[in-house]
Amino acid sequence: MHRIVLDAMGGDFAPSVTVKGAILAVKESSVSVILTGPKQMIEDEIKNHTDFPHDKISIVDCPDIVGMAESPTLSFKKKKKSSIYIGLELVKNGEADAFVSAGNTGAVMTTALFVLGRLPGVERPGLAAIFPSSKSDYVIVDVGSSVDCKPNHLRQFAIMGKHFSREILSVDNPRIGLFNLGEEEDKGNQLTLSTYHILKQCGFNFIGNVEGKDLTRGAADVVVCDGFVGNSLLKFGEGISKMLMSFFKLEARSSWLSMVGLLFLKPAFKRFKKRYDYDQYGGANLLGVNGICIIAHGSASHIAIKNAIKVATRGVQSNIVKKIGDGISSSQISDEESVTPLIPS
Amino acid sequence: MHRIVLDAMGGDFAPSVTVKGAILAVKESSVSVILTGPKQMIEDEIKNHTDFPHDKISIVDCPDIVGMAESPTLSFKKKKKSSIYIGLELVKNGEADAFVSAGNTGAVMTTALFVLGRLPGVERPGLAAIFPSSKSDYVIVDVGSSVDCKPNHLRQFAIMGKHFSREILSVDNPRIGLFNLGEEEDKGNQLTLSTYHILKQCGFNFIGNVEGKDLTRGAADVVVCDGFVGNSLLKFGEGISKMLMSFFKLEARSSWLSMVGLLFLKPAFKRFKKRYDYDQYGGANLLGVNGICIIAHGSASHIAIKNAIKVATRGVQSNIVKKIGDGISSSQISDEESVTPLIPS
Repeated sequence: MHRIVLDAMGGDFAPSVTVKGAILAVKESSVSVILTGPKQMIEDEIKNHTDFPHDKISIVDCPDIVGMAESPTLSFKKKKKSSIYIGLELVKNGEADAFVSAGNTGAVMTTALFVLGRLPGVERPGLAAIFPSSKSDYVIVDVGSSVDCKPNHLRQFAIMGKHFSREILSVDNPRIGLFNLGEEEDKGNQLTLSTYHILKQCGFNFIGNVEGKDLTRGAADVVVCDGFVGNSLLKFGEGISKMLMSFFKLEARSSWLSMVGLLFLKPAFKRFKKRYDYDQYGGANLLGVNGICIIAHGSASHIAIKNAIKVATRGVQSNIVKKIGDGISSSQISDEESVTPLIPS
Repeated sequence: MHRIVLDAMGGDFAPSVTVKGAILAVKESSVSVILTGPKQMIEDEIKNHTDFPHDKISIVDCPDIVGMAESPTLSFKKKKKSSIYIGLELVKNGEADAFVSAGNTGAVMTTALFVLGRLPGVERPGLAAIFPSSKSDYVIVDVGSSVDCKPNHLRQFAIMGKHFSREILSVDNPRIGLFNLGEEEDKGNQLTLSTYHILKQCGFNFIGNVEGKDLTRGAADVVVCDGFVGNSLLKFGEGISKMLMSFFKLEARSSWLSMVGLLFLKPAFKRFKKRYDYDQYGGANLLGVNGICIIAHGSASHIAIKNAIKVATRGVQSNIVKKIGDGISSSQISDEESVTPLIPS
């Protein structure tokens, strides 16, 4: 049975939502969960659940608490007994198989980078998030781990994304697209112009540039971009979805016609939520570090936590860390031949 | 009466949509329109309209046609008799007050830059697009004119955006936000980190960093970013809206319950389209050049064309070009004191 560490203190509604998510996860899948956080707080929360599966969920006491807005570097340096630090150490030491947190994203990324370390050859870790399209799901790497990138970072994101798409989204031969302003080879900024030529020579299924308006119709399985752009897409997409939903909520209140219409559409909206809601995707995956680390949204629901644990489990089952490691290592030789850094260091 | 040049050959459905848009515009507002394009083609199209207002719409013959995917630089160099080139020359020579095109965006931007020229002190023009939020509309500068930016470019976009927000969106004291990954001052990439400190000293209503998820709830009136990021937001937003709409269209076909619900919601969807559809905003405004130049979406409908002409007219009425020019000039002195270029040239 795979052992997943869940940062019980991570997220805006911890530990209530995390404990609930852990219970759901062990009920639905054959996993065990290790909750990290202040023991007493977690035990107090557990008292609210008469059906708590003590045989499948254990607690590791971590007295330090990292706030959602705390400095990642400071928290890493000063709080070695936090639910994040100790949780990642459990993975590092082989006492657990994967780590899941809805806590301070920066703190989790920084701590994971230092505790787990990078896989050999990886220059920068890439945060991979799954997005919905009108066809199938696709993954964007990077959504916020590396905000100033060089072409070789994007090339490595493409390799990581390829393995992620295969192992987690079950895509046989993932179509890899470079996120850009236009489809033409000569479109883009300095970074994408240089990266295009590198990706073309990489030997994988590179389909060229993809634009924002094409992502939502499933133009690529893996979309590569720097972390600033990827994070912008992630958050703007979230904002737009919320805006549209709130429009219909207001509508429902404004006229009886709309209200009746929305009542009839309730099952459709439920399907909609199931298909397009960020909760379905659990969280983003920090690729390129030596271990599985899933970072869920700060406002993650217990469903999102449960799904994040599921994604973590799939990562363990498919041995994704080893596959990414091998992928990066075996790409190093051809690299030096093909990579001409057009952007100076 | 203001004289607006409309590139009759611009857009995927030209000249049918452009002629229709021009007719609608002169009917609704007190403007005259000059159509630029091959005379015979436009006259053939006019024959479809028995109510064509010959007193308010004239034609200037331009035999060269610039394709939607043609190289901007080549078309500018080789097609001096295109609807874009001649149209912009009419503005330059004072024979018209503003130029509107749904044609090849790159070609329009390049030609405008060379024919109209930059306003004194402007380093880079900024393409400004209006976006809907759940409160009021806001403007993002730049959405694709300058894809590799330095902090001072973003500072100038902020000044241009401030005047645009005042004159076109009637916001008294626009709240200017720097598009970023987080609200905290220490968040961001090299560009935004450097820009933050510059904007803080600019003396206008700078509200700090704004994130993608906050834009849609109306967190700022003017959002400043580089053209790569802005263009990504524009196109991704467009893609998401389309994806959501197509979900509901499919739903309508899948069950009678949804179909009835959607029928009831028809007025709501109409209001929705009116509020959130890109057509409502007419087009993007190329700020920082010495003249008014509006670039509509290639797939613009006649409504979008009409609205683009309206925005152009508002620009003429408010004398926006002069105001931006004055704004940039008067900011130059304080500039040299405050700008410490953290990103090397």
